[in-house]
Amino acid sequence: MTPQVPTPAYRRLSVEERRGQLLDAALALFAHRSPEEVSLDDVAEHAGVSRPLVYRYFPGGKQQLYEAALRSAADELRLCFDEPREGPLLVRLTRALDRYLAFVDEHDTGFSALLRGGSVAETSRTSAIVDGVRRAAAEHIMNHLDVNDPGPRLRMTIRMWITAVEASSLIWLDEEKQPPLEEMRDWLVEQFVAVLSVTGRRDPQTGALVEAFAADV
Amino acid sequence: MTPQVPTPAYRRLSVEERRGQLLDAALALFAHRSPEEVSLDDVAEHAGVSRPLVYRYFPGGKQQLYEAALRSAADELRLCFDEPREGPLLVRLTRALDRYLAFVDEHDTGFSALLRGGSVAETSRTSAIVDGVRRAAAEHIMNHLDVNDPGPRLRMTIRMWITAVEASSLIWLDEEKQPPLEEMRDWLVEQFVAVLSVTGRRDPQTGALVEAFAADV
Repeated sequence: MTPQVPTPAYRRLSVEERRGQLLDAALALFAHRSPEEVSLDDVAEHAGVSRPLVYRYFPGGKQQLYEAALRSAADELRLCFDEPREGPLLVRLTRALDRYLAFVDEHDTGFSALLRGGSVAETSRTSAIVDGVRRAAAEHIMNHLDVNDPGPRLRMTIRMWITAVEASSLIWLDEEKQPPLEEMRDWLVEQFVAVLSVTGRRDPQTGALVEAFAADV
Repeated sequence: MTPQVPTPAYRRLSVEERRGQLLDAALALFAHRSPEEVSLDDVAEHAGVSRPLVYRYFPGGKQQLYEAALRSAADELRLCFDEPREGPLLVRLTRALDRYLAFVDEHDTGFSALLRGGSVAETSRTSAIVDGVRRAAAEHIMNHLDVNDPGPRLRMTIRMWITAVEASSLIWLDEEKQPPLEEMRDWLVEQFVAVLSVTGRRDPQTGALVEAFAADV
C-alpha cells in the first residue's frame, strides 16, 4: 500500500488555474447577491484561500474582481447564442433561448443586479460589457437571418426585441420564475415573429424575412 | 416720460421661483449633456446667478441638483401619460406616445445618459425615480384597459412593451431620429397590439382585451 499523501491546505495551482478558481468563486457569489453584499473576504472564503491571495490576483480589489467575473459571465452568455446554422430558423432561436433562460435561472440575483443598474459597482466599463453582449446577440440573429446589410427598421426591431427579452427575464425573476421556462421560451419566439411582422408591413427587407419564416417550418 | 428703472442684476424671486429657475437651468443642461459634462458653474451661468446661490438652494451640490432635475423631468414625463379616458383606446395610446416622443426629442442627451446607465450620477435613488415612471406608465395603461387585477402574463407583456418603447426611443436617438416621429409612434402602437395578441393566444384575460381593441376602432 502506498502511503496516503495529505492534501495540502493550498493545492498548487497554475496562475491561470488559480485565477479561474477565484473567478468561479466570485461568479457564484455575484450571481446570487448584489455587488454591495459581496466582500473580498467572502470570495476568499468561498474559494478556500486567504484574502491576500485574492489581492495578489486582483490588486484592484472588489471592483476589479467584479468586472472580471462580469466579463467571464458575458463570455458564457455569448456561448448561449452559439447555434449551428442548420434547420428551421425558429427552432434555432428556440434552442438559443433555452440556453439563455437557463443562464438567467442560474445567475438570477447577479443578472438582475447588473441589468437593473444603480449599483455602486456599475461603471461605464461594466455597461460596455453588457452592451457588448447585446451587440453579439444582434449580430448572431442577423447572421442566422442571412442579412448582411440590415436597414434601420430591421435593426431597430431586432434590438428592441433583445431588450424585451432582457426585460421579460427580469420580470420573470421578479415573478418567481413564472410562467415555466418552456412557456417563456416559446412566448419569446412568438414575440419575435410578431414584432418582425409589424415592421414587415412597412419595411420590405423585414417583410421578406417574415415570409421566409412562414415557409421554413 | 417715466424714468427707466434699471434691471437689477438679481431679480427678486420668491424661494420657490428661484428654485424653479435653477431647476429649469439644470434640466436644460442635463437634457443635452451627460451629468459628467455639467458643472455647477455651468448651471449658475445658465441661470444668470452666482455659484454660491446655487449652493444655497442645493447644498448637496451637483448630485442633489441632478436628482431634483431628474424628479422634475419624471413629473413632466408622467404628465405625458395623462390622457382622458375617452374615445378608442388605440387613439388614446397614439396621443400619449406623441407627447412621450416629443419629450424624448426635446431631452435627447439627458434621456439617453440616464437610461443607458453607467453614469457616475446614477444611484439607487435615480434608478428608483426612473422605475417610478415605468410603473406609472404601466398603471396608466391598466387603467385605460379597465383592468383592475392584471394576471402575471398581461403584466409581463405590458412591462415588456414599456421597456421596448424605451429601448426603441434610445435607438431612435442613435439613428438621428429616424424614422420620423409619426412613423415611430404608429409603429409602437402596432407593436402594442402585436405583443398583446401573442399573449392573448395563451392568456384569456389578454385575449379578451385584444378582441375589445379590434371592435373599438
